[in-house]
Amino acid sequence: MTYQEIHDAAAGQIGPYCKNCAVCNGRACGNAMPGPGCKAPGNVSARNYEKWQEICVNMDTLCPNTTPDITMEMFGRRFALPVFAAPLGSLEMHYGAKYKDPEYNTILINAAAAYGSLAFTGDGVDPINLIRAAEDMEKVGGVGVPTIKPWNKEAVFEKLDVLRAHATFAAAMDVDGAGLPFLKAMNPNAGSKSVDEMREIIDYAGIPFIIKGIMTPAGALKAAEAGAAAIVVSNHGGRVQGGTPATAEVLPAIARAVKGKLTILVDGGIRSGLDVFRALALGADGVLIGRPVLNMIYGGGAEGFRVYMDKIAEELRSTMTMCGAASLKNITADKIWNGQNM
Amino acid sequence: MTYQEIHDAAAGQIGPYCKNCAVCNGRACGNAMPGPGCKAPGNVSARNYEKWQEICVNMDTLCPNTTPDITMEMFGRRFALPVFAAPLGSLEMHYGAKYKDPEYNTILINAAAAYGSLAFTGDGVDPINLIRAAEDMEKVGGVGVPTIKPWNKEAVFEKLDVLRAHATFAAAMDVDGAGLPFLKAMNPNAGSKSVDEMREIIDYAGIPFIIKGIMTPAGALKAAEAGAAAIVVSNHGGRVQGGTPATAEVLPAIARAVKGKLTILVDGGIRSGLDVFRALALGADGVLIGRPVLNMIYGGGAEGFRVYMDKIAEELRSTMTMCGAASLKNITADKIWNGQNM
Amino acid sequence: MTYQEIHDAAAGQIGPYCKNCAVCNGRACGNAMPGPGCKAPGNVSARNYEKWQEICVNMDTLCPNTTPDITMEMFGRRFALPVFAAPLGSLEMHYGAKYKDPEYNTILINAAAAYGSLAFTGDGVDPINLIRAAEDMEKVGGVGVPTIKPWNKEAVFEKLDVLRAHATFAAAMDVDGAGLPFLKAMNPNAGSKSVDEMREIIDYAGIPFIIKGIMTPAGALKAAEAGAAAIVVSNHGGRVQGGTPATAEVLPAIARAVKGKLTILVDGGIRSGLDVFRALALGADGVLIGRPVLNMIYGGGAEGFRVYMDKIAEELRSTMTMCGAASLKNITADKIWNGQNM
Amino acid sequence: MTYQEIHDAAAGQIGPYCKNCAVCNGRACGNAMPGPGCKAPGNVSARNYEKWQEICVNMDTLCPNTTPDITMEMFGRRFALPVFAAPLGSLEMHYGAKYKDPEYNTILINAAAAYGSLAFTGDGVDPINLIRAAEDMEKVGGVGVPTIKPWNKEAVFEKLDVLRAHATFAAAMDVDGAGLPFLKAMNPNAGSKSVDEMREIIDYAGIPFIIKGIMTPAGALKAAEAGAAAIVVSNHGGRVQGGTPATAEVLPAIARAVKGKLTILVDGGIRSGLDVFRALALGADGVLIGRPVLNMIYGGGAEGFRVYMDKIAEELRSTMTMCGAASLKNITADKIWNGQNM
Repeated sequence: MTYQEIHDAAAGQIGPYCKNCAVCNGRACGNAMPGPGCKAPGNVSARNYEKWQEICVNMDTLCPNTTPDITMEMFGRRFALPVFAAPLGSLEMHYGAKYKDPEYNTILINAAAAYGSLAFTGDGVDPINLIRAAEDMEKVGGVGVPTIKPWNKEAVFEKLDVLRAHATFAAAMDVDGAGLPFLKAMNPNAGSKSVDEMREIIDYAGIPFIIKGIMTPAGALKAAEAGAAAIVVSNHGGRVQGGTPATAEVLPAIARAVKGKLTILVDGGIRSGLDVFRALALGADGVLIGRPVLNMIYGGGAEGFRVYMDKIAEELRSTMTMCGAASLKNITADKIWNGQNM
Repeated sequence: MTYQEIHDAAAGQIGPYCKNCAVCNGRACGNAMPGPGCKAPGNVSARNYEKWQEICVNMDTLCPNTTPDITMEMFGRRFALPVFAAPLGSLEMHYGAKYKDPEYNTILINAAAAYGSLAFTGDGVDPINLIRAAEDMEKVGGVGVPTIKPWNKEAVFEKLDVLRAHATFAAAMDVDGAGLPFLKAMNPNAGSKSVDEMREIIDYAGIPFIIKGIMTPAGALKAAEAGAAAIVVSNHGGRVQGGTPATAEVLPAIARAVKGKLTILVDGGIRSGLDVFRALALGADGVLIGRPVLNMIYGGGAEGFRVYMDKIAEELRSTMTMCGAASLKNITADKIWNGQNM
Repeated sequence: MTYQEIHDAAAGQIGPYCKNCAVCNGRACGNAMPGPGCKAPGNVSARNYEKWQEICVNMDTLCPNTTPDITMEMFGRRFALPVFAAPLGSLEMHYGAKYKDPEYNTILINAAAAYGSLAFTGDGVDPINLIRAAEDMEKVGGVGVPTIKPWNKEAVFEKLDVLRAHATFAAAMDVDGAGLPFLKAMNPNAGSKSVDEMREIIDYAGIPFIIKGIMTPAGALKAAEAGAAAIVVSNHGGRVQGGTPATAEVLPAIARAVKGKLTILVDGGIRSGLDVFRALALGADGVLIGRPVLNMIYGGGAEGFRVYMDKIAEELRSTMTMCGAASLKNITADKIWNGQNM
Repeated sequence: MTYQEIHDAAAGQIGPYCKNCAVCNGRACGNAMPGPGCKAPGNVSARNYEKWQEICVNMDTLCPNTTPDITMEMFGRRFALPVFAAPLGSLEMHYGAKYKDPEYNTILINAAAAYGSLAFTGDGVDPINLIRAAEDMEKVGGVGVPTIKPWNKEAVFEKLDVLRAHATFAAAMDVDGAGLPFLKAMNPNAGSKSVDEMREIIDYAGIPFIIKGIMTPAGALKAAEAGAAAIVVSNHGGRVQGGTPATAEVLPAIARAVKGKLTILVDGGIRSGLDVFRALALGADGVLIGRPVLNMIYGGGAEGFRVYMDKIAEELRSTMTMCGAASLKNITADKIWNGQNM
């Protein structure tokens, strides 16, 4: 099946909130929650998408003729491409009855490992989600990143025990979930984490730890100080706070602050290999893609994941050829037009 | 009743000019006066709304986990939140037959005092409006701010005598009403006030005096020089002059000029707790909200006021959590994204 | 009759090209010539209008209470307001059968003189237009400005002889007509004028000479060098060249170059007293208004002119009150918001 | 026939992809390939068009009265105007059955030579295209530029042998075709060219060599280093890479880097003589126009070409008159408004 066929097949598989848009750009679902939309006033996910589109690349083919190498290394492991699946959760509530979280995660974890990509999985109200994800990851060599909500210390430690028991490759926390009402309702001391609290958690984890939800250079420096191995520049797709900048807008300053100190990932509105190129040129080492991966899996299962990754890989290689980048290391800031014309 | 229910209930209660829009953004009523619209060419109220929306907040949850304190002190009194009701008047002309000004003010003054907020009330052609408002305020301890039009000195003194007789907490003047045709028609020497004239009025008042309608740093410095205890950065919702900037646009420079010298309030297009956060980060100490408060009272009376304030309070606290601000004092300029990404 | 009644009455009086829009903003008639539209690609007249709208005024009523003086002096004569009628011609071709140029000019010249304004009149193919205009102006004391196309020297001298014979107050040339095809067809050496040629013409005229169609500081300095008493910053409403800036955009730099050396007038998209205020704050001494004056005269004759001038005068006075300007001299650059907010 | 008649006549002649729009601005065909559209996300051809429109010209007719000279010299030959036909190919696939490439090229080459313009012709899958073009050019004195795809060295040399056999005036390569999938499919070592490879090709050619597809100052300097006689600043109409800047945006910086070292041509969205003026003022020596030339030839054959060139020539001369430029050398950067108004 082609990308378009799988995408179209998803239409009947996804419950009423997601419109399975031709391009997932945050417009049809802004300010519409529950569902995949974003928090009032509802423009952040659209802004995430649009700001990548505004970034222009410098075309130059007076360069040696090579086949671009798009492999990426992280935490001592090499990936087929710098594109990972972002954590998603509460699937029945947001996307309809087709999948419960664990079922979806099983497909995703295996498809990502088979491709040489990496699956992040969501946490949520039911502890079984994380346990089942860790089990599935263990079967593929621990490749996968369960993402833990910012519960209180004890609850987080319990979840980290699960990860260690199943030898997962890395752990993540989406600290930007700190304000979600259900967190504190379930777990009174859940919420924001100081650098000291974060460091204690990271030390306890004992595996590479990724902090997701960084939107400022100061936040990135705190993540580094706490011992994070990587950050995800993310505004949670606009679902946790209205009125934030797009991730593309804050990425360059964050990269200037911490590039080289830890791995920089970014998500939010990245849809194509051209967008991946833009993200890397602005300072990211890799990207996460959330909703479109889900639509492709709802439309085509593991094949949907593979076809989408093939599409992105080809677009990324093509853009690298057209901009004279032989490997990901060559996707530097000077590949982006600086907007100076006069 | 929920916010949405009360909002929707207002639809049948408000006369033909106000459309009770889902978001009160100045679009449906631009350049349509009488009514709640604004003066030709009619774009200022929409601009007020939009410029808040353009301001992006810096999300950062790598912070100590606290419950934000949103209380605010002004003139020695502590308020439950930094959100007050802006003065409105001529209600029958603008909003239909449901309320005469004094009746509406009675509901508003009591609801605001009960909540720990503060009601500003309008002046207008009929002197009874201000008298009745002062009486109502007296019953709740003088909490409320009758707002006097820039009549000539004698007329203003007469109104200040009323306020003193009823021991109101503070007085205000919307000096931006200086060009309203009906003022000079009723009171030939009404209009603009020099610093000396303003100082004489403030001295006579003997209570904290708030000058509403400041749009420049120079104007703010003159207000300080005249002895004002507070200013309201305001363009009167675009109703007194076309072609002004939005209040969000001029607030930062005004705050740089007078921050700390007097209390800085701002109004114009503020609709949510996120907007309140933006205003405080740009230098305001508190905000006034006009039309949406009215719609909630037309739809639900005192309950409408309370439900709307609860909504704003929750949004403000949530944004403070997501941006790492434990109290209003922490809502500083660095909580706003500076737009620098390259 | 009110402004709105006269405006609406014009609808049936103006031939098919002009749509008598609620606001004459160049949108309905862009890239549609003949008619009142502008040259391909057709966006200049709309840009003229819009750029005034983008300019924000600084409201400040903490000022002495005065009645603004809007009178303006030019060439030793005092005018009731700094608003004049721009030259228009070929009326039958552009606006339909109601008026031939001389008939229209008779109404305009008399109405303008009666109001204390000033009529510029157009030239065109038929020499009678200018002769009749000069005769009409003579009857009201020479107040009026026949505007001569950039014919060759001999043709211009002939026209200046007419003006001197009728003792007109001043003369003008719209040098931006240099590229009009019909000019060279009728008069082979018509067209652009060097500074030396222009000086010879101005010397021959012997009355204050106004060069219309200046769009650069360099052009303004050449006008001054040639001895012009005034310039009109104008792009001819977009009718002679596509792709020019709006007049509001180039006015400030031109004013910096020649302010005080000669009188600076400006036209293009000025529609209200607020726009007049904006133009003066950007450096103009007065303004010309073209098409809307015509619509008001087609709709209401001399009364139309008077009602429109009353409207503009009131809007100008009101804006001056709201921005603290007691006279035209007080409408300085600091009355405009500089766009700096952070 | 008039321009409009020929343009309209094309409507029935062009197959389903091209909509023969009133203005060819890339909107109706964005992200729609095959056909004349551009690569995903599909906005580059529209951006090419729009960025010329944003550039404002400085009108000034206080200048000597002359008839502008629009002739242009390149490689020792004088052309009637600085406007050439851009290379187009695969016509049946993109524009329908009316013409095969060689038939179309015969009309174009002869029409361009007759007018004193210059035809670039496309390459493509079938070698006959280039051979037939070179033969046709030989019959008109070698005036024409066959444009070779970036095949491997041997294939390019073979094509250059054809050009030399037919004594064509110059040769071109669209190096921005390096990423086209069909190239490598047919010719495994086709693709990007290093400076050394390019120099070897240019040396072998022995005639003026034009590198098409330069979008950065660095690329332009490499072209100069390789010995190119000219470059075409081009993004291939957006057909080879999404997300590039418009050519109007990168032209000034490229001109600063290499002006005077080689001839600078530019294409992409240039539609009128006003656009040609803009391109020359930003630093180009001449321009290429692609799709609109095709539509005029589909609508009117050789007459279509002539009528379109007459239109552009007249628009260019008129703009030069209005901006005081007597020859192409006078179309300097100061003819463009610098956007400074305050």
